[in-house]
This record gives sequence, C-alpha cells and structure tokens, in this order.
Amino acid sequence: MAVYTEVSDDDLQAFAAAYDFGRVVGCKGIAEGVENSNYLLETTTGPLILTLYEKRVDPADLPFFIGLMEHLAAAGVQCPIPLKGKDGKALRTLCGRPAAVITFLQGMWPRKIAPEHCQELGRAMALMHEAGKSFAMSRPNNLSVAGWRPLFERTGQSAEDMEPGLVEKIRGELDALEKDWPKQASADLPSGVIHADLFPDNVFFLDRKCSGLIDFYFACTDYLAYDVAICLNAWCFEPDGAFNITKANRLFTSYESVRPLSKREKELMPLFARGSAMRFMLTRLYDWVNTPAGALVKPKDPREYLHKLMFHRGVSVMADYGLNA
Amino acid sequence: MAVYTEVSDDDLQAFAAAYDFGRVVGCKGIAEGVENSNYLLETTTGPLILTLYEKRVDPADLPFFIGLMEHLAAAGVQCPIPLKGKDGKALRTLCGRPAAVITFLQGMWPRKIAPEHCQELGRAMALMHEAGKSFAMSRPNNLSVAGWRPLFERTGQSAEDMEPGLVEKIRGELDALEKDWPKQASADLPSGVIHADLFPDNVFFLDRKCSGLIDFYFACTDYLAYDVAICLNAWCFEPDGAFNITKANRLFTSYESVRPLSKREKELMPLFARGSAMRFMLTRLYDWVNTPAGALVKPKDPREYLHKLMFHRGVSVMADYGLNA
Repeated sequence: MAVYTEVSDDDLQAFAAAYDFGRVVGCKGIAEGVENSNYLLETTTGPLILTLYEKRVDPADLPFFIGLMEHLAAAGVQCPIPLKGKDGKALRTLCGRPAAVITFLQGMWPRKIAPEHCQELGRAMALMHEAGKSFAMSRPNNLSVAGWRPLFERTGQSAEDMEPGLVEKIRGELDALEKDWPKQASADLPSGVIHADLFPDNVFFLDRKCSGLIDFYFACTDYLAYDVAICLNAWCFEPDGAFNITKANRLFTSYESVRPLSKREKELMPLFARGSAMRFMLTRLYDWVNTPAGALVKPKDPREYLHKLMFHRGVSVMADYGLNA
Repeated sequence: MAVYTEVSDDDLQAFAAAYDFGRVVGCKGIAEGVENSNYLLETTTGPLILTLYEKRVDPADLPFFIGLMEHLAAAGVQCPIPLKGKDGKALRTLCGRPAAVITFLQGMWPRKIAPEHCQELGRAMALMHEAGKSFAMSRPNNLSVAGWRPLFERTGQSAEDMEPGLVEKIRGELDALEKDWPKQASADLPSGVIHADLFPDNVFFLDRKCSGLIDFYFACTDYLAYDVAICLNAWCFEPDGAFNITKANRLFTSYESVRPLSKREKELMPLFARGSAMRFMLTRLYDWVNTPAGALVKPKDPREYLHKLMFHRGVSVMADYGLNA
C-alpha cells in the first residue's frame, strides 16, 4: 500500500497536456505496490495507470523497463504499454520524479491460487520468455547470487535474534549456492529477459484466464529457468507451508507446452528454487530489520522462504515437482 | 491510505452479479480514506466505487448515509449515488462486511487551496444544506459538544505530555463550550443535515469548478452553521498556521449567495469555530495516543487545531472573518 508522492491537480493537468489521451476526470492513488507511487487515471478515453518512480528505482534502468514493455506488447505479450507523449517520449518528469503513463490492463490478481492459475501462469511466462529473446537491451540481475551475501551481511545479527543458529544456516547455504550456481548461459541453459517478481499480485486474470502480466520493475537478464523457480516458490506452496505438487505440475507442464526445458535446466531447477527462496528470504529479512516496530505495514516473515529453501534441499529429481522425465 | 479487506475475484464476481453494471474488468484498492476499504471498480459500463464498511462505521447508520446520498443526488447535489442491485437494494454483504457500490464522481481534490476553491466550496455546501432540509431521516452528531469531554478523558495525560499545562487549558475550554453551546435549533439557528467532515479531500474539482462532494460517513443532524465553521478551520488557514481572511471571505460570501446566515448564526460563528477546532483536536489527540510509535502512517499533530481554537477565541465579530455585516 503506497502512495509516496501527492500530485496536485494543476501539476497533473500540465503533465497530461503532453499526451493525447483526452481529459483527466479522476486520479486515485492505488493501494498496491511498494516501490513506486501508482495512480489510476480516469480519462475521457478510459482508464490509465500513472506511475511516479520513487527512490528505490534507478532512473538509469527506466529505459530498459519502458523499452521492455513496448517490446513485449509489440510481440503479443499481454502487458501494460507505455504511452508516448506528443513529443514521442514515454518518460517525463512529474513532481520532481521520473513518471510514465501506461495502459490499464484488464483483470484482477488472484487472492486464492488454484491449479488452473498455475497452468495459465506457466504458459504466459513461457510466451514472455520467448518474446523477450529478441529484446536488444540487457540489465544485470543485482539480486542474484553475487548480491545475496552482501545483502545478508547488511542484516547483521537479526537472523540470529529471530532464530538461534539461523546465521550459520544461511551462511552455509550461501556457500553452497555460490559454489554450485552456474557461471554462464549456454545453449542448454538459456538466458534472457526474466520478470523476476512474478508473484500472484503481478499476474492478472479475467474469467479464470490470464489477462496479462504487470510490474516489470525487477525485470532483468538472467537464466530463464530461474524465473520459473521464482514462480514455483510464489505459486505452488499453500498458506500452511505445504508444497502443492499438482500446482507445480500444472506450472511446468504448461510452461513446457510453449518452451520445453532442457535436461540441464531441469537438473538445475532445485538449485534455482533454493536460490530464489534465498533471494526473497533475504529481502524480507532486510525489510524486517528496517521496518520500525509497530508499523502499520507489517513486514512479511522471512522464515516462510527459509522453509521453502529447506524443502528444495530435499528435491533431487523433477518428479518431486510433479513433472515426469 | 487504507484497504482493510482483500476481496477475491470470485467473491467480487458473485457480488457483481447482483447488479446490472456489466462486467468487472478491474478492481484496485484506493489509497485514501481511513475508515473504510474503498476500491475503484472498472466495469464495461465505466468506473464505480466499491466500499466495504469497516468496524468504525456502525451498520445501523448505513441506511442514513445511503438514503442521504440518494436524497441529495435526487435534489441535484453533485455527490456519489448508491447503485441499487437487481433486488432493489443498495446495501449488501461482501467478505462478511456491509458493502455498497456508488457512482464514480469526476474530479480531484485540491492539494493546494486557493481562494477560488473556498468560493466554490461555500456555494456547494449551502446547496447541500438546502437540499438536506427535505431529508426525512436524522442522526445525532456523536462528535458534538456532549461527546468531547468523554473523548478527552480517554486520552488521559497525553495532552500534558505533549505540552505542560495543556490538560488544564483544554478543560477550561470545554467548560466554556459546554456552558455557551446553544441548546436547541430555532428559526434563527437552523439545524439539518451537515456533512461534518468537509475537508479538501472530500471536495472534488474539475477545471477549477467544484464537481461534487464525497464521503458522507460523518454526516449527521446538527446546526448548519457548525458545518460552515468546520470548513472555516479546514480551508482558511495556511500550512504555516496563518488565518487567510480572503479565503474566509470567499467561503462566507458564496455560502450566503445561496443561504444567508442569520444574525444569530453569525454571532455564534466564533463559538462554532472553537467547537469545531476542539472536535478535530480531540480526535487527533486520540489517534496520536493510539497510534504505535514508528507507525508508517503518522498521526496528525493535534496542536494545529489548538492553534486554530486560540485564534477563534480572539474573534468577536464576523468582520474578523472577512465578512462585513
């Protein structure tokens, strides 16, 4: 829930004059997203989304994000499309911040995940990976293996305070991940554009069909299979922590109906799933440490992802994820 | 900034089936309002507002609020109109809470107040007061003079912690307000429906004209002039605390162009302004005490309203508010 920047009506009307979308008749801050300020603009030509990029987004990355949405949309992926102003530019400034207007994507994100959602997701993600192959720009994933240990060190002893022995456990896991993580892409370990944050609130559905993907502000260049592993963690565990093998089966099967995974990608899947669990555990741990006690927005418990990490340590074959060889 | 209840897509579609507004194609939590959960519904027939009434609203009051919006809209006041379902009912249940869908009111609330805004406000408020005269229902104002002392007592010594001597100062002011507050309405002190919370975020503008009033969930039956006094405090002081006599002049003058104030109402205006300042100071003090330290949503400083209260103690004639007799 976040609106960090208040936009005055005068500022907004001046900003809107740079576009051709008609008259703004409403502007409501959206209570979703934690990185940027998002507004739902009602205009005489329909709804649009206005995003002000706050300090957690590096302005140097914006051309990548904007270019990626344009590229994916042109390739037929259902996602928001940045609107160009009369000057041909999609990025401009509002209230001292970089800002863009993107199309309104129909649909709602699922609050309760069913296997059918995972099936729709798998196909949509694979289509996005295929479409991303021809995208010319690249952006390193600064939340991949090289970034985890520095991030962990910044959380000090907080993991230990949370659970005695946890610091040692995480260090050991970091050692293993750093040792085993593949060093570079290859024909059987393709790299490309990944979304990197494909959680349920970034995947929209309409009448139980996936209507599109949003929020590309963590997108980067990395192993495509790693994106699948992120989804495995985000979509295939129940609220009580149980792994749902049916959901995983649907996710992988429908993904492979578009882009089959190589033998190497399948072998690496448990490692990627552990890495993905580490990445989200660490950012949650960081937020846990840096959120004041009693704050209204409660940080999420990092241990949910520690639990997932441990689950994947027990996986050796894809059959454990519900996918037969 | 508040969305207290997460609505699932299945629950929403089932709820929407009770109405005739077409298909829901989007639903975004709105980061405004602190009492209820508000969603902007995008439908195939246009935008609508979905409100889930949270625990701070007494369900017994909802027929008054819904009936009032219907009545005012029918009388030509620009305000949201509750939508009736196929069963003819405007109130139903969603996620275990009372819920209603109201029309989307075009416009934006002003972040920076100009005298022209006060002029538009005065007229719109007076038209609402006139239209409310024929509304049959009534609802006592439980945040008027009788409610202030009990509310203050629930904040304990917190005012004293904030500023030594403050408890004594507030008690003295409560004594005076209770002694001087008029006991009942009369021909020269008309009572009727007041909005009771007509702050800038509840008044929408489009192209510098008032496009309507929203959020009637504090509305009640009270002296009409008291509503004007609330606006005097909410709209006619600068961020640095200075009283802006030009804004007050515009507010009163345009209000009187629709409904002239009686001599008695004018005489009571400084008292009503002190009472209104007391009411908002006390609810802010209460929130100040009851918000955990370090919370992301900072409570507003009650002393802003103490300062306004003190200003009104120095006012004896309407000329001090910029209105000549």
